[in-house]
Amino acid sequence: MPQNEVPDIVVARLPIYLRVLNHLLAEGRQITSSQELGDRLGISSAQIRKDLSHFGEFGKQGTGYNVAYLREQLRRILHVDREWRMVLIGVGDLGQALLHYQRFDEHGFHIVAVFDNDPAKIGTVIAGHRVHSMDELADIVREQKVEIGILAVPPSAAREVAARLIELGVKALLNYAPITLTVPPDVRVQYVDPVAQLQHMTYYRGAEYENGNRER
Amino acid sequence: MPQNEVPDIVVARLPIYLRVLNHLLAEGRQITSSQELGDRLGISSAQIRKDLSHFGEFGKQGTGYNVAYLREQLRRILHVDREWRMVLIGVGDLGQALLHYQRFDEHGFHIVAVFDNDPAKIGTVIAGHRVHSMDELADIVREQKVEIGILAVPPSAAREVAARLIELGVKALLNYAPITLTVPPDVRVQYVDPVAQLQHMTYYRGAEYENGNRER
Repeated sequence: MPQNEVPDIVVARLPIYLRVLNHLLAEGRQITSSQELGDRLGISSAQIRKDLSHFGEFGKQGTGYNVAYLREQLRRILHVDREWRMVLIGVGDLGQALLHYQRFDEHGFHIVAVFDNDPAKIGTVIAGHRVHSMDELADIVREQKVEIGILAVPPSAAREVAARLIELGVKALLNYAPITLTVPPDVRVQYVDPVAQLQHMTYYRGAEYENGNRER
Repeated sequence: MPQNEVPDIVVARLPIYLRVLNHLLAEGRQITSSQELGDRLGISSAQIRKDLSHFGEFGKQGTGYNVAYLREQLRRILHVDREWRMVLIGVGDLGQALLHYQRFDEHGFHIVAVFDNDPAKIGTVIAGHRVHSMDELADIVREQKVEIGILAVPPSAAREVAARLIELGVKALLNYAPITLTVPPDVRVQYVDPVAQLQHMTYYRGAEYENGNRER
């Protein structure tokens, strides 16, 4: 299957489809349609059919999709029908919050080790995780076959930490530091930056406000 | 300026440009180029020039962009040259972490009130914020002229809380609940879902893993 040819924007929607299918399954539903998925997601049914058509035929005209089957196919396509091992770098407020975030484990993404460079934190236990020194990073990443790194370090440290992880063979980084990383083509980075997301929204909101069109 | 005609994908990149300009300014830089911006962001310089051209002429061929000027223009375009008032709904682990997240205030996004429906939490003070009952939501949103809502509630509560905020005139929602919201066309939602972002990356990583191409 020529997965690399699927537009990245389509790939980005697959986890959202999977999330809805999980909800439908939890509701005991057996069959759904591109129309229903579209309604739940605010996406056109045509878009959903087109997105899924990149990966094969999952439903029949007029009979819709089998929820459990489509869910399993998406899990396979996204490679989340297996477990993934992650390290978390940085246990400030944000890192500590991530250690309490139960959805990672629920979805098969496991933080197997936690690191910081603050001597006051190293050796302490947070949410069941002992905090390791950065000196131990290489050994643990190799021993535990870690494939994903979560960066919860200050912006000033993010580039160096990313480089070390990449050097150790980690090819997927979830970056909470508000900085853009330059990485080799075979490394993926996803950014979590709520400030950028707020600014994206205020672009649209601000204009109305200024024009005095805003009703309250 | 016909801002509504700018593609949303372009709007999404403006906060990232602004972030780089902030960094450049902090480094004491006065002039930059689309080439440099592109190098820092992994975007082509042509894309950057095209994106910015939606909003006017910000640089001269051959002389580049004035960092401070372009930054101010982007702040104006994104309407972040003013302060924004937000409410946070839900002070579980995630909500509490958000209360400690200093970047909101640094960028002019202020959490002015915090709400939960748990009697054990109402009245307590977290990171300087007294937790209010949901009964107080309407009064506070109106009095404080709140324009942005942050949802850090369980998925089961997200739809109802979003509906209440929208009813009160809040038109921008930053949603941390892993659920897609259906909202009126004049309301914007941005989703923070790190699990979906991980699954987006494993799509690419998994294939290599299975094919045994992975070197370590």
